[in-house]
Amino acid sequence: MGLCQRWRSLRLPGLQTCGLHTAAVPAPPQWLAERLGLFEELWAAQVKRLANLAQKEHRTIKVSLPGGQKVDAVAWSTTPYQLAQQISSTLADTAVAAQVNGELYDLERPLETDSDLRFLTFSSAKGKAVFWHSSTHVLGAAAERLLGAVLCRGPSTECGFYHDFSLGKERTVRRAELPALEQICQELAAAAQPFRRLEASQDQLRQLFKDNPFKLRLIEEKVKGPTATVYGCGMLVDLCQGPHLRHTGQIGGLKLLTNSSSLWRSSGTPEPVQRVSGISFPTMEELRAWEEWREEAELRDHRRIGKAQELFFFHELSPGSCFFLPRGTRVYNALVAFIRAEYTRRGFSEVKTPTLFSTKLWELSGHWEHYQEDMFALQPPDSDSLASSPRDPATSHPKDTLALKPMNCPAHCLVFAHRPRSWRELPLRLADFGALHRAEASGSLGGLTRLRCFQQDDAHIFCAPVQLETEIRGCLDFLHSVYTVLGFSFRLALSTRPPGFLGEPCLWDQAEQVLQQALEEFGEPWDLSPGDGAFYGPKIDVHLHDALGRPHQCGTIQLDFQLPLRFDLQYKGPAGAPERPVLIHRAVLGSVERMLGVLAESCGGKWPLWLSPFQVVVIPVGAEQEDYAREAQQRLQLAGLVCDLDSDSGLTLSRRVRRAQLAHYNFQFVVGQKEQSKGTVNIRTRENRQLGERDLTEAVQRLLELQGARVPDAEQVF
Amino acid sequence: MGLCQRWRSLRLPGLQTCGLHTAAVPAPPQWLAERLGLFEELWAAQVKRLANLAQKEHRTIKVSLPGGQKVDAVAWSTTPYQLAQQISSTLADTAVAAQVNGELYDLERPLETDSDLRFLTFSSAKGKAVFWHSSTHVLGAAAERLLGAVLCRGPSTECGFYHDFSLGKERTVRRAELPALEQICQELAAAAQPFRRLEASQDQLRQLFKDNPFKLRLIEEKVKGPTATVYGCGMLVDLCQGPHLRHTGQIGGLKLLTNSSSLWRSSGTPEPVQRVSGISFPTMEELRAWEEWREEAELRDHRRIGKAQELFFFHELSPGSCFFLPRGTRVYNALVAFIRAEYTRRGFSEVKTPTLFSTKLWELSGHWEHYQEDMFALQPPDSDSLASSPRDPATSHPKDTLALKPMNCPAHCLVFAHRPRSWRELPLRLADFGALHRAEASGSLGGLTRLRCFQQDDAHIFCAPVQLETEIRGCLDFLHSVYTVLGFSFRLALSTRPPGFLGEPCLWDQAEQVLQQALEEFGEPWDLSPGDGAFYGPKIDVHLHDALGRPHQCGTIQLDFQLPLRFDLQYKGPAGAPERPVLIHRAVLGSVERMLGVLAESCGGKWPLWLSPFQVVVIPVGAEQEDYAREAQQRLQLAGLVCDLDSDSGLTLSRRVRRAQLAHYNFQFVVGQKEQSKGTVNIRTRENRQLGERDLTEAVQRLLELQGARVPDAEQVF
Repeated sequence: MGLCQRWRSLRLPGLQTCGLHTAAVPAPPQWLAERLGLFEELWAAQVKRLANLAQKEHRTIKVSLPGGQKVDAVAWSTTPYQLAQQISSTLADTAVAAQVNGELYDLERPLETDSDLRFLTFSSAKGKAVFWHSSTHVLGAAAERLLGAVLCRGPSTECGFYHDFSLGKERTVRRAELPALEQICQELAAAAQPFRRLEASQDQLRQLFKDNPFKLRLIEEKVKGPTATVYGCGMLVDLCQGPHLRHTGQIGGLKLLTNSSSLWRSSGTPEPVQRVSGISFPTMEELRAWEEWREEAELRDHRRIGKAQELFFFHELSPGSCFFLPRGTRVYNALVAFIRAEYTRRGFSEVKTPTLFSTKLWELSGHWEHYQEDMFALQPPDSDSLASSPRDPATSHPKDTLALKPMNCPAHCLVFAHRPRSWRELPLRLADFGALHRAEASGSLGGLTRLRCFQQDDAHIFCAPVQLETEIRGCLDFLHSVYTVLGFSFRLALSTRPPGFLGEPCLWDQAEQVLQQALEEFGEPWDLSPGDGAFYGPKIDVHLHDALGRPHQCGTIQLDFQLPLRFDLQYKGPAGAPERPVLIHRAVLGSVERMLGVLAESCGGKWPLWLSPFQVVVIPVGAEQEDYAREAQQRLQLAGLVCDLDSDSGLTLSRRVRRAQLAHYNFQFVVGQKEQSKGTVNIRTRENRQLGERDLTEAVQRLLELQGARVPDAEQVF
Repeated sequence: MGLCQRWRSLRLPGLQTCGLHTAAVPAPPQWLAERLGLFEELWAAQVKRLANLAQKEHRTIKVSLPGGQKVDAVAWSTTPYQLAQQISSTLADTAVAAQVNGELYDLERPLETDSDLRFLTFSSAKGKAVFWHSSTHVLGAAAERLLGAVLCRGPSTECGFYHDFSLGKERTVRRAELPALEQICQELAAAAQPFRRLEASQDQLRQLFKDNPFKLRLIEEKVKGPTATVYGCGMLVDLCQGPHLRHTGQIGGLKLLTNSSSLWRSSGTPEPVQRVSGISFPTMEELRAWEEWREEAELRDHRRIGKAQELFFFHELSPGSCFFLPRGTRVYNALVAFIRAEYTRRGFSEVKTPTLFSTKLWELSGHWEHYQEDMFALQPPDSDSLASSPRDPATSHPKDTLALKPMNCPAHCLVFAHRPRSWRELPLRLADFGALHRAEASGSLGGLTRLRCFQQDDAHIFCAPVQLETEIRGCLDFLHSVYTVLGFSFRLALSTRPPGFLGEPCLWDQAEQVLQQALEEFGEPWDLSPGDGAFYGPKIDVHLHDALGRPHQCGTIQLDFQLPLRFDLQYKGPAGAPERPVLIHRAVLGSVERMLGVLAESCGGKWPLWLSPFQVVVIPVGAEQEDYAREAQQRLQLAGLVCDLDSDSGLTLSRRVRRAQLAHYNFQFVVGQKEQSKGTVNIRTRENRQLGERDLTEAVQRLLELQGARVPDAEQVF
């Protein structure tokens, strides 16, 4: 099929009717025709070369299949796809790429030697990456076609893909252009264009991309060997390592999501480019399901909930810090009180340490060397610097600069060291809700997820090495019980020593073994992340999953051999000799602010009673019950419960009940003539379950019990 | 009596035996003799002049005495002392100075015109100032005599006096010299030297003090009229405005307290001087009583208690900030929880506002103009300034500097203004425990009294003008109930508009009237401080008195008409038109840190149960009861009570009980064989009251009740 023919075959009728292009379909530009012509030439040569090779050698190779079965195949001829078909047609249809002796392979790329063969499907993270990476080529091809784009780069992301390209200096991509672009993508997908892998020499590469300055720069900077791979897919030819799907027809559903401007940063000056992002799935059903999930997630966005429920707001005069309104503060304080109660049960001691420290502290802890750019530093008041500080002639700054603490650990080391310690005091578990400040770039700030000022449920355990295992078990139990109350599942991963770790290998051996032992005993499945530990100690990462199944990293359990050394921490051992404690950094909520956001999204604004800023609303049936309703409200408030009153007599009772349910009040106490005379309330839940008439005093008592027990479903068990 | 005679008469035998001066008594230096000679000359002339004046005029004047009685007197002759004698010999003996038509007078200074006469005694603050100011002259005279000091200045202070002087470049005053110096002071006092007031011309002044560079500088800088007063007292002649005691014999008891170095700051370069401080009283009995009180106060010093009880500590790496240890944090959190409970009862809503704000906020609030020097300012992270901030070429600082908040009010104005407000929402009472930072000079820092970082029980009430009176009454009631629980008495003062106040006079009229009305209705006596209000609104000052009777200013109720204007705060009034709210700043504890220090001193480390970090200690009689004791401890801890265990079997039971009482544990739970078998505990209080055997569960319940009710005397009412 010649170029013009292909071009026309892709301009399906739907496109003309979408109204964006009323002009006749333009002919493909010259450079595109030339690029495709050259590719076809090289491709034909490669096909011939491989056929010759296969024929000449006719070497039989051994392939070990996923099930363990071993089969024979022909070098330079047999493809993973052929073997997948032998296993099952379902596998052949759903596989997105192969893994051959650990290396990622196109399904149509012939095997060369004895191989251990695995298949990737969309269900795995690596499979999704191949799928979305292939999809972004479709988007690139559509952008070339519809917009005359000069393609830059198009990677997959954690959740979809994007493509960066240039439309010339002045032109940006418009939101209104996305539907047409999406339609071409869908047409290209439907056309089931194969992805063809071509090995090309540097000269051939330069020839293929002579009209694309981005690619020429990439060839110059990145291509080190004599050859590199390019892929053809329909009329598109792109510089790419692969692998890809067999053909675009495997993309059953594709949706474009956003358009924006971005910068291409290579070695030269950053260059403005246009970015379009999208997502795709093997089937249209999966795309529809994702759209529903996304709609739900958007409804649950904590910024939306925070505004709608008046929990918090942000202000340009304090970028990156959150203003918690009364209701948000209520949730915040309830979270802190929860953790405090756990601290009491678990033998943690809360301390309060300062916010501002001399940079000498941060030099001692190592933060000044490694973390300085993320810290807010400032000058002490003049009186100090005049009286005592020599000035550094180089900067004319007084030498004892202060910095806002980004973490509590160094302060806790000072607490440990402020007087001699004995082994009898260990483990010493110091907890601190102190405000932390980190100089995050303004571009990275977003809602409660990344702030410049936040508090953590931060604690540091100073213990003897023999106490390590018990303490780790205690930390895991702490995580487990808090996350259970919050309704999160979670998965643990052990991160072991990275290259360049500091400290004695035998200490690491022992510590990693202790962590592993504790994980085993904990009984939940866990993953091993070899080499992912910090340079100062191994750690257990905690990935929690919220009610929508989305992952968040909040808690952590982190061993530290370095800080006790840097602060020369010691305690007097049982034998009288000084010994060095081990330090465990741990947090369960992590940033309280961030956790509040995660919880808001996880419960979709329907807070469990104990966290709820909308616990009860009292609704008088008529104006005559308003006094009694107010009395009931006060009774609840004095008991420490959140209680509002909806006496708006302009609305009917049922409208007010409905309004209360939409506002997610856990309970509505309706009071009419009968309730007033009997000192009772008629209770409904936010799901409109009718609990009927109850004595007011008993109802208050029951709410306090349920709140105190932090039950997740007070409305069910009332 | 000639100079040498006087000199000798003052070198009483005791001095020689004190061992510091084994050499023969030195002859008085030449300059001292000259100065005294000149003074005596001028004095004789003045005596003669006054006698002539009295004789020549022989004018009768009317004097109105303190009781209201009016008597005749002779101008330039009759003295306040003579009139005091006529009233009563006790008054004549105890008066320290007179007040003549409002002006302070020496008792021996003749009256000149018709006079309204009052007498000051040591019992008043003004009387103490005269008494201590006279005493510092005695100290000055002793320093000239013993140390050859060149006197600088010697003021009275709030609690005693000090004298600054120079001993030449190298010489400092030593602690070991204080006893000898004190003895000379006592001898000079015993010698009952009269204070003689002399009017001298500028020339005469320069002649008198030609050997004292400090006084010459003072004459040059301060003496503006043709004459000034000097006083003679024994051999001392000093430049001084007076008034003074009649003679040094009125000083019955005198004690020197400290020696230190200081700086004399006049218009030139600061000059190092030596400082000796002391205190004095009319009688030796009063001095003894003060010494006892001081011993008690020192025992109760919060820094001492903080260290002994391990409540908190300070560290040079965070000057002016406090590290609260677990026990101090317990007290701190209990105080905050107390105020939070009151907030719930009283309809205050807690918010959490950021710590760091753009200086644009502080410009808007006026803090940048008036308070900038006391604020910690810093640069935003680079990414911000690169991306968005123009740099000020004058300072090369990015223009949007950030500053740590020294107060919460501007942030609360942002909260009020973040969305439109209606009159239905008022009064809006926003409370905030946010950390505040103020750049106090390092020299002014001390314990918890003055910190660079602290939290307040800060709240701001936004209300309609008509709601002002109810809100002020509410604030007064809030103060009253908190201070009652804390065991403080207090006295209120209304501070009205100062010169240069801002805003409408009619608004001030109304507001002052409202405050006065609320104070009247409150029913406690209150003082009026005319003109002491802030320029932005009148206020009620609260002076509380701790258990030792010492005054502290902690709480405040402050009206503000300016911030609502500056932030253009508005709400929609009942008629639909925009109206301006009034702002009330209020705090009850004030700085929580400082209040913790005041409370520590007030209770002398014997904390009331609800604040106590030493609530219960469980003491097993023998090793067999240790398990049961531990179980009891855990029961108490799980209930949220502070409970320690003293199972040190190296000490007898009675020694451990004694130790617990010395550590001020509110309760000791002793458990022996019998208690173990019955599930009981044997309870004693820290005052060793024996409450006998109680069921453990009931005891825990009772403690929780007493803690919850915040009773001051749980040990009495258990």
